Parts: sequence; structure tokens; C-alpha cells
Amino acid sequence: MTDTFSWQLAVFASKAITPGPLVRRVAALSMLDWLSVGLAGVGQPVARATRALALAEGGAKGGAEQAHIFGTTTGVPARMAALVNGATSHALDYDDTHFAHIGHPSVAVIPAALALGEVQGASMAQVTEAALMGMELSIRVGLWLGRAHYGAGFHQTATAGAFGAGAAAGRMLGLDAGQMMQVLGLVATRAAGLRAQFGTDGKPYNAGLAASGGVEAAQLVALGLVANPQALEGPSGFGATHHGEGNVAKALDGLGKVWHFEQVSHKFHACCHGLHAALEAARELDVAAPEVAEMTVATNPRWMDVCNKPAPESGLEAKFSYRTVLAMQAFGYDTGQLDSYSTRVISDPRLVDLRQKIKVVADAAVPETGTRLTVLRRDGATLEAVHDLATPMELPQREDRVRAKAVGLIGEDLVERAWACLMDDTLAARFASLLQVDPDVLQGT
Amino acid sequence: MTDTFSWQLAVFASKAITPGPLVRRVAALSMLDWLSVGLAGVGQPVARATRALALAEGGAKGGAEQAHIFGTTTGVPARMAALVNGATSHALDYDDTHFAHIGHPSVAVIPAALALGEVQGASMAQVTEAALMGMELSIRVGLWLGRAHYGAGFHQTATAGAFGAGAAAGRMLGLDAGQMMQVLGLVATRAAGLRAQFGTDGKPYNAGLAASGGVEAAQLVALGLVANPQALEGPSGFGATHHGEGNVAKALDGLGKVWHFEQVSHKFHACCHGLHAALEAARELDVAAPEVAEMTVATNPRWMDVCNKPAPESGLEAKFSYRTVLAMQAFGYDTGQLDSYSTRVISDPRLVDLRQKIKVVADAAVPETGTRLTVLRRDGATLEAVHDLATPMELPQREDRVRAKAVGLIGEDLVERAWACLMDDTLAARFASLLQVDPDVLQGT
Repeated sequence: MTDTFSWQLAVFASKAITPGPLVRRVAALSMLDWLSVGLAGVGQPVARATRALALAEGGAKGGAEQAHIFGTTTGVPARMAALVNGATSHALDYDDTHFAHIGHPSVAVIPAALALGEVQGASMAQVTEAALMGMELSIRVGLWLGRAHYGAGFHQTATAGAFGAGAAAGRMLGLDAGQMMQVLGLVATRAAGLRAQFGTDGKPYNAGLAASGGVEAAQLVALGLVANPQALEGPSGFGATHHGEGNVAKALDGLGKVWHFEQVSHKFHACCHGLHAALEAARELDVAAPEVAEMTVATNPRWMDVCNKPAPESGLEAKFSYRTVLAMQAFGYDTGQLDSYSTRVISDPRLVDLRQKIKVVADAAVPETGTRLTVLRRDGATLEAVHDLATPMELPQREDRVRAKAVGLIGEDLVERAWACLMDDTLAARFASLLQVDPDVLQGT
Repeated sequence: MTDTFSWQLAVFASKAITPGPLVRRVAALSMLDWLSVGLAGVGQPVARATRALALAEGGAKGGAEQAHIFGTTTGVPARMAALVNGATSHALDYDDTHFAHIGHPSVAVIPAALALGEVQGASMAQVTEAALMGMELSIRVGLWLGRAHYGAGFHQTATAGAFGAGAAAGRMLGLDAGQMMQVLGLVATRAAGLRAQFGTDGKPYNAGLAASGGVEAAQLVALGLVANPQALEGPSGFGATHHGEGNVAKALDGLGKVWHFEQVSHKFHACCHGLHAALEAARELDVAAPEVAEMTVATNPRWMDVCNKPAPESGLEAKFSYRTVLAMQAFGYDTGQLDSYSTRVISDPRLVDLRQKIKVVADAAVPETGTRLTVLRRDGATLEAVHDLATPMELPQREDRVRAKAVGLIGEDLVERAWACLMDDTLAARFASLLQVDPDVLQGT
């Protein structure tokens, strides 16, 4: 049993870990980024619906106010807080992405660690460490599940994410490696989430599902529930039933020493991450709409069924449309601003007209994190730009852009208060209390 | 859209239905059976763990006491009640089974209907009708997913069951067909449950997962959440990603007129349903342990990896072992009694010795619901019995056996009170209040 995949993960999840200063800093940036996109998302339908359910269930009536949720001063049970905060922070699709397995680590894992961190009276450093461990573990499980799993239709944010959430939750509860095996085994029977939900409220709901499922599994194991500890990789386990590739060596390579999380990619455009390389390339070329005769974006084939909606009809759908976001940018809309993605903007006849001039082609030679953009200008000149998101961004630049994005979303004051919590190692509850800002107050920032 | 599988199901789930008197009576028997196995299960680990979590979350501290749960007087939110009651009622693996898709309809669906029935102030007739519709729908979805889905490793009780739970919950909330499509779409992204959990607390947890997932999905749709309404059968939907067969004609055949639920099989032995035909055949032959020289049970190959544990080490594992239960019966243990399945009983050296003389063979000619049992007696005589659970039991006999089983589990008084609720059409809350019997009190019955 000690040589199994689950056991290796369980040991990593329960023992002391030694992340270096760089990855710790990246984790802190992800906590700030997560807070800012979550607060900015409190008005979204999935945030409103899950918050209303949580408040109807108990918080508002004086039930166990264990943890804070986005957008209200009322606390709710930890498991429910994870659901609301996971769904809310993914509502805008503006949170971080990891391309190794293609998933959003923060939204599934941070809510689980933070909610139980509050319950346990943990410090912010403990929560950040548990979240970092859980996010790394979710990436490792995601690598193990592989592209076959994603390709079959599963949303790694939700599936791999649930294992990371369970591990982070288990760590906050002080579970040992044997119990952590149980958590992974129990999560295996409930981890779920389909890419078929992309473009609907079901996508952010998937993130909340992963976070709350992880919390529930860890809590039940702590209460004595016994599952099949081999249900992740054993016969008829999660991998076998969910089209997993099962490359253990690849998934465990360097575990505990190498932190894949360091390569997490923060979003600076408020749309599907598959569109970002193209937008960065377009910024580089800087061709205004009236000058465009024709535009061709070459992208990796895997994005074609993810974010190539040719003629979106809603702001949400527009976030999954190459043609629309490139046209928006050419017309000078700031693709980093949330209100740019409105029905009014995307149905502007001039924009619809430009959209017709943009061609999206699949090219297997283009990496999944890259793009090749070609613009034929009306004056006959042809411009080309190549951009790859995998090209690492230096830490200072990354920090500047994450903070600038956060300030744009939630204002200078909140950003400073959040950053102070992250740097001074106060109680996790102090950071969590920043979630409770009233949505109406936030509108004014 | 109106010709899709989901739409047909959504219409069935939301419109008036006309079940005949026989299936209504069978549904009432299942409600009684569900109550009795649930109450008998309150001391099981999965019941204790889920109940403790529910009470810690809110009920005990005055949160929303929306619905009753097994084994405590404190009410909890409906979604949580569905989790606790689903897991608790499946804890003993003694609830009903439907062999068309191989699933336990009651434990996934009744808790969802009952919990929201309490919230809505519904009558018992309304709850029974919603539960019957939901159980029928779960069987239909199970037929659509088919044996490929089950064979791949999925627990239909949990997967198909979640759709039935969602539909029953949606009906209690008065959702229309369009909203019901949304419920099915949202359930599609969270329906889960692995057969790899068989023999652990994870199996009954799967039932609670289905019930609570259905409630949560229906509540969120009622609160405005919008999912992909085609996520059940559409591209990269639940069926496509979960090894579904997708035979729509078979699944919808006679929907609304033919009630497959009528064929549900109640359990009269407190072990895995795959063992029951063999036990019935052994009762028929009635050969006592000292007379047995050799025993051979021929069973359908599909059961070989489900309930053929050759040498179980716990009472729970024994419930999945042909050799053990047949040896128990030959030694005169009542396989209908819960306390027969103890470590003490199964490790009795005489029983272990007899176990060695019992051979289990796969035979594709034996139906899944049947068995062929051959006993070579010490006196040289060979006896053979064939039994098939699919041979319908007449209603009066079924009613007698279900009631006798319930009386054995929870006592005459509770059975009479429950039956009165079911027949007199009182408020659902009155029936639900029977769940709150204290486990310690129950021990005395």
C-alpha cells in the first residue's frame, strides 16, 4: 500500500512541506487574485443562487456560523462556505489557470482551506500552505488523469480539483496519512464536473462542488467514515472509470521538491484562458478596427471546441469566442474590464461586421498555451505575432499586474488590507472577513 | 428540444401522472420498507458520521430545521437531511433493489422527496407520488445508461439515482418542464458514485450523495441557476462521458403508462441482493451444515466481482460473500436478522470450515436475478434448486413479508403508525417525524 499513488499523495498532503520563497509568493498572489475575482463576482447569478441557498439553510437563522462567504456578513457552515466561495470566485472565469493539466487550481482549493482554517482558528500562513499543497496535489492528480480525461469531457477544475480540496481540507483538520488516503478514496466517489457546462452557470458551480465535496469528505473521515482507500487508482476506481491515463511516474515526478504551481497563470483578460495568448499577440500588433482587412488566429486544435463560439449571443458566451474578443480589442474595449463583456457591446453591428473578417484555424504546431496571429491590413501590409503564455513572467511584473488587476476590481483599500493579512500572518479569519463586503458597497469602488 | 430524451423526462417529471393502484401500493410498501431499514441503520458508522456533521453544521444550534433526519429530534436543512437519510437508509444494504438497471431506487429518491415535502408542507400522498415518479425516472435513466455504465464501475443507485432525486425534488418545488430540464442538466455535472466503494461506508454514502445532490440542484434551479439543459445526453454529456449506452427508445418505452417500479424487489435477507436468489434456493433445499459434503452455487458472471468475496473478515464484507451467507444459513443463522452478520459469527471455525466446501461458479446461462444451487450431501444424494427473484411475488405475500420484516426491525407500534400515515394521507411532516426516534430507544424494540 505504501507504494501506491494514493499513498504518495497522502504522505505529501499530511507531512511537513518545504516550498521555496518564490512559490510561496506566487501562492500569496493567487490568494489575493482569488479574493479580488470572488468579490467582483458576488453579483453573478451563480453567486446569488448559492448564497441564497446557504443563507436559507442556516446562517441567517443563527446556525453554525463557521466561515465567511462572499457578499454577506452572515457566516455559514464550512462545507457550504466552500460551495458558495468556490462558485462565486469562478463565476467571472477570471481566476488563475494551470496549463499542465488545464484546470483552475485556486477556485477549487482555496475555499476549502480557508473555510476550515476559520473553523480551526488557523493562521493565514497555515491556510496558504494547505492551499498551496492542495493546489499542487490537484495539478499532480490532473497530470495523472491526463488529456484523455479532459478530452473525454471532464472539467479538471472540478475533478482533479476535488482531490486537492479534500487534501487541503484534511490538512486543516490535522489528518494523518492513513486518514488522508480515506479522504482521497471518498473524494473518488464524488468528484465530478463536465465541460458540457462551459458557458453556463454550471461551470462555476463545478468549482464550488469540488471545494465543498473536499470539505465534506475530510470532515466525514475525521468523524470516522471509512471508504475504499484505493478508489482513486484501484480497480474500477476514479481513473479507470473516468478515462484517466494513469501515468504515475509523470504525476509524482519531483513531488515535494518541484512545485508545478509556480507556473500558474494569472488572467489579465476577463475571458476564457484559451483566448489570452491571442489577445496578448493582438495587443502587440495594435491594429485598430478600421485598419483590419482580415485577421487569422491559429490556435491549438484542443481549444476549438472550448472557446471558439463563432457568434455568441450573451456576454458570458462572448468569453468563449476568439472572434468576439479580438474584435472587441480592435475597437478599443478593455478586455480586462468586466463590463466590456455585455450584450450591448457584442451586438454592436460594427463589431459583428469585424467578427466576420476574423478566421480561427486549428494548427497542431501551435502549443496549447500559444497563438499565431496574422493581420492583413487595409493598406496591404501583413503583420504577424506569436505569443506563448508559457513563457514565464518575472515575479515583479507578475506582482504588479496581479495587484493592478485586483485594484481595478476591488479598489486600493481592500487590496492593501488583504495583502497585509497575507504578509503579516494574522488569523485566517481576518482575511476571510474581507469576503463579507456587501455587493452594493462594492459596486461603488 | 422537445424531442430530446431530457425533455421527455422533464415533461414526465413535471406534469400530472396516473400510476395505477398496484404500483401506488408497491410505492407505499417501499416507503415503509425505507423507514424501517433507515431506523434500523441509525447506529451504523456512516449514519453516525453524516448525522454528526449535520448537527455540527446548524441544526443543533438553531439553524434552519427544515426536515427530520434519522436518529435525532433535531431538524436540519433539507439538502443535509437528504444526505443523512440517504446514507442512513442504505447503511445496512437492506433496502429495495430494481434489477432492470441494478440500482436501489428508494434510498436515493425518497429522502429528496420527503425532505422538500416537509419544507413545502406537502401531504404524504404528494410526497409518495413525487418519490414514485422520481424512482421510475431513475430506473429509466438507468436503462438508458445501461449495463455498459454499470460494468465500467458506476453505482447506478448513485448516478441514475441522482437524476431521480433531482426530479422528485423539483416536483416538490413545483418546477415546470423547462426548469426540470435545468435540474437534469445540473445533476449531470455532479451525479457520481463508484462501485469501488462496495463493502465500505462509501456505498451508503453514495446514496446520500445522490439524494442531497438532487435536492441542491432543484433548489438552485428554483433560485435561478442556469445550467446546460442538454448535459445529460448532449455532446460530452453525462452519458457520453460515463460509458452510457444511450438507448432512448428502450428507456422511454411506455413512460407514464408502464411503471417499471412495480417490479422493485424488496430484500428479505440483510445482505447484497446478488446473494438472495441463492439463499432462497438454499431455504428450499434446507440442508443443515453437518449434512453438507459439497455445495456449488452457479450464478450469473456479473455478480462475480460484486458479491463473491471468498473469505470476508468483517460482518460488512460478509454481506458480499456467497460462501459465507450460505454457510451461515446452513448453520441456522437467520440471514434476515442484522446481528447475524458479526465478526464473531463469520470467524466461527466451523463456519470457516464449511465455507471451504462451497464453490461459486459463473454461468452465463443463469439469469442475473437467478441461481442454480447444487448440494452434495454426505449420504451421497445430490439436490438441486433453481430460484429466480424476477418471478413476481403476489401483492398480498409481498405486503406480508415487507410488514413482517419492518416489525422485526422497528417493532409493531412504529410500523402501525407509519402505515397509518401512508394510508390516511396526513402531512408528510408527520411521517417524517417518525425518523427522529432515538437510536438508544430503538435498541429496545
